[in-house]
Amino acid sequence: MTLPAIGISLGDPGGVGPEIVLKALSERASLPEARYIVFGGRPILEEAAEALGLRPDLITWENGELPSGPGLFFRDVGGSPVEFVKGKASAGNGEASFLFFKAAVKMARLSLLNAVVTSPISKTSWRLAGLSWRGHTEYLESLFPGAIMTFWSERLRVALLSHHLPLREAIERVKKRTLLDFFRNLHQSLGRTKSCVRELLVAGLNPHAGEDGFLGTEEEDEIRPAVEEARQEGLAISGPFPPDTIFLKAIDCPEKMVIALYHDQGLIGFKLKAFETGVNATLGMPFIRTSPDHGTAYDIAGKGAADPRSLIAAIRMAVELS
Amino acid sequence: MTLPAIGISLGDPGGVGPEIVLKALSERASLPEARYIVFGGRPILEEAAEALGLRPDLITWENGELPSGPGLFFRDVGGSPVEFVKGKASAGNGEASFLFFKAAVKMARLSLLNAVVTSPISKTSWRLAGLSWRGHTEYLESLFPGAIMTFWSERLRVALLSHHLPLREAIERVKKRTLLDFFRNLHQSLGRTKSCVRELLVAGLNPHAGEDGFLGTEEEDEIRPAVEEARQEGLAISGPFPPDTIFLKAIDCPEKMVIALYHDQGLIGFKLKAFETGVNATLGMPFIRTSPDHGTAYDIAGKGAADPRSLIAAIRMAVELS
Repeated sequence: MTLPAIGISLGDPGGVGPEIVLKALSERASLPEARYIVFGGRPILEEAAEALGLRPDLITWENGELPSGPGLFFRDVGGSPVEFVKGKASAGNGEASFLFFKAAVKMARLSLLNAVVTSPISKTSWRLAGLSWRGHTEYLESLFPGAIMTFWSERLRVALLSHHLPLREAIERVKKRTLLDFFRNLHQSLGRTKSCVRELLVAGLNPHAGEDGFLGTEEEDEIRPAVEEARQEGLAISGPFPPDTIFLKAIDCPEKMVIALYHDQGLIGFKLKAFETGVNATLGMPFIRTSPDHGTAYDIAGKGAADPRSLIAAIRMAVELS
Repeated sequence: MTLPAIGISLGDPGGVGPEIVLKALSERASLPEARYIVFGGRPILEEAAEALGLRPDLITWENGELPSGPGLFFRDVGGSPVEFVKGKASAGNGEASFLFFKAAVKMARLSLLNAVVTSPISKTSWRLAGLSWRGHTEYLESLFPGAIMTFWSERLRVALLSHHLPLREAIERVKKRTLLDFFRNLHQSLGRTKSCVRELLVAGLNPHAGEDGFLGTEEEDEIRPAVEEARQEGLAISGPFPPDTIFLKAIDCPEKMVIALYHDQGLIGFKLKAFETGVNATLGMPFIRTSPDHGTAYDIAGKGAADPRSLIAAIRMAVELS
């Protein structure tokens, strides 16, 4: 059996990315057996390794087939050498982190990787570098319009109908056709993973899920008809449920995933139940992408204090979902 | 010193209200010293007392001044005898629970009570009884347009800018003038209580609190100017903060209260951190109203299995805030 090939991008060189990648790979016993390929710049990795006193045994991988057994590889994403700055956003940091990420995605699109784990980037760095995507997810969405943002922790699993949209615009996405396409896409994507999720719970949009139309009409006009049609197609899906109690129905039920209709509906619930162990996974693409649930943490970057647990969880999830 | 006078309405006679009231009053050692006056119907109370084998020593109170020392009193809200049905919504249940509540509110408006604790009513029963208010809060708002819904638990405190509105309408309330009035009103109301809250944290409306206008404009156009103006007036208030992490800033900080801009923004966070011990308190009125954070629980009504802890917490909170 060929082990899964998991790409790991170093993230913003000014943030905690290089540090948590090195720490995670140094604790190989806590990682599942796989072929891990780090996408980054050699000087960045070496500087971080020296600062931490860590020397993970990375095999340089240039091209061609990877060996089928377990291993740690390094793909040097060189190009023009970039200036990087520790502890803050910069154009160089943005350019570098984008190149690492793009290189990993390219390999995944060629089916050479099963999953890509992305270390934190800075949206400001990307902006300074003149990139038009707000972040990883927006870049992936530009390639795969059906990409779905999901959040996973031991206690909860949440999928978002929409994410980085103003609330007013997010509400406009709550239409029967959009919902039905989303339900089908999520269902199929989950079916291709080894996850335990078997049942989808859909949140309402309004307080008390509209209370029979007294507190809003989207539940009766859009959401319920979409759920009904999906059920008739054989999906295990139910709702709409009152948004303020739906999470209580799904907590500690690994077979259940909550579908939230907008960013904060999903993430208020998720972050209160999964801080520091949460993983963000993008589904709906030919490969899986996961990332830790935190940012660049510039304030502690380079100080050796960054906690690799969320990245380790993201790596484990990437293997599990592959 | 005259002890606070706390009215307690029995709630829907078909629900768990009578049972939890009797249980709470039977555990008087767990309640603060106060004058407690139950507003209900005698047959309902007696039936529940018999079923539970509880006989709290309630002194009938008809009219006039209450003694200043601690005591348990009963105000029989008779009127036309109503038919009540255990375990489900009915017009009689709605009529009775409304009369109990209204009688307590009337006494509070006459300054004979410091606070009213309301046991759960059924919105369906109220509708069947032909009442035009959706519930307790809407009735109070019809009398006191500045009424504010707040939620309290050991770990979190949350105030809602709006509550039972469709999400689209709730968004329309997010205007500088409305927010500023709300901040001032909440600040003054809290100042009249003995609560520890000293600092208000305001949530944004959009993901990441709009991210400098990239994900929505309400933060920069409405919320931030309102917060700034309130600060200039001397309020300890800050924000707007990203809605998905604001709760983490306030958890276990008794001096901090989160201002949520719509029902589910506040209640998703609150319910995940305070299930079964949460208390709903209405401020912004000449008296305090509190209620437990659960409904009539028709399915277990009359079976002796109802848990009085949330009601006890509501009673304690009523005394604390008075």
